[in-house]
Amino acid sequence: MSMGITRLADAKAIEPRRRDGRKRLLDGARQLLAEKGYAGMELRDVAERGEAPRGSIYHHFPGGKAQLIKEATQYAGEFSAAGLTIALRDDDPVAAVTAFCNGWIKLLRRSDFSAGCPVVAAALEGDRTPGAREAAAEAFVRWEKLLSDAIATHTDSPERAQALATLIIASVEGAVVLARATRSTAPLERVAGEMETLLLDTVAR
Amino acid sequence: MSMGITRLADAKAIEPRRRDGRKRLLDGARQLLAEKGYAGMELRDVAERGEAPRGSIYHHFPGGKAQLIKEATQYAGEFSAAGLTIALRDDDPVAAVTAFCNGWIKLLRRSDFSAGCPVVAAALEGDRTPGAREAAAEAFVRWEKLLSDAIATHTDSPERAQALATLIIASVEGAVVLARATRSTAPLERVAGEMETLLLDTVAR
Repeated sequence: MSMGITRLADAKAIEPRRRDGRKRLLDGARQLLAEKGYAGMELRDVAERGEAPRGSIYHHFPGGKAQLIKEATQYAGEFSAAGLTIALRDDDPVAAVTAFCNGWIKLLRRSDFSAGCPVVAAALEGDRTPGAREAAAEAFVRWEKLLSDAIATHTDSPERAQALATLIIASVEGAVVLARATRSTAPLERVAGEMETLLLDTVAR
Repeated sequence: MSMGITRLADAKAIEPRRRDGRKRLLDGARQLLAEKGYAGMELRDVAERGEAPRGSIYHHFPGGKAQLIKEATQYAGEFSAAGLTIALRDDDPVAAVTAFCNGWIKLLRRSDFSAGCPVVAAALEGDRTPGAREAAAEAFVRWEKLLSDAIATHTDSPERAQALATLIIASVEGAVVLARATRSTAPLERVAGEMETLLLDTVAR
């Protein structure tokens, strides 16, 4: 069955309303965490982004803000892990890392440098909100494992593959912070270029 | 004039009280920004850390929290720039970067992973607090310039020197976030190792 452009656009416009309330709230929390961090995130804004009544937050998340942040961080971690898995499907870690950086460059431009990484925001909570910090740690370790396994198939040393995976995640996350501070994508472009050179030198494609 | 160990220890213990109130408040703000971020920082805690009455904040910083954060970020930027300048004095960028990473490893352990980078916290404020974001950008650009100039004396390409400087700052800042999330210094140790290898390969010492 064919679908005209108009109908596709319509379908996209109403799609967020169709998603269930819980998912919408998580999505709103993920966005606000990325923009404002844990302390700056207000539950009334989460409800507004999720197009849901404020009372529904406690219905879906009886643990309140702490539960919401923990689950939003897990959701963000899974979202990026899925993106990385797709990018790594062609067994070309160099291209995958370039695509990962380009995705960030687009997101920063589209959000006028207001969007950051929700997992970084959760990590900075430390032991004030242990659930958020632990969810952030799990996301970082999972992304690192995906990259490390992909690089390891092209190198002799699993330790080196893990070190490169850590370097990629740390440098991209750090470059996103530098880009937001300077309101320029140059830091990410420079890091992407260096990562490409380093991986090409290390990974026997 | 010689000074016994006891007298040195005494001098150190009373030294914070001797510093002027403005400096003490800035120092308290810098610490709290590093631990809790902008939104999580309360003025009463700044006053407590600065061992000063809360009213003195508005005496020294009539612009309130926004002015305090901006100046605390500038102060943190200068503090690290001074440290980098000393580390780079021997014209050995590899040793300087290793020392920079080791300094972070010590700070993370000493603070039980509660201390992060105040400049990163200020950067994440974005345009909600433009003064803080701009002070963070200035600090990052200044550190990058110090490293870039040091690396450039050992390479033919100023662009490459700048890209490596950006990579060092981004990856170390990112690794500090990963370390806080996982409560482990391993991410910083791996990034330090990779940076050392990369610089040794690139920089003709």
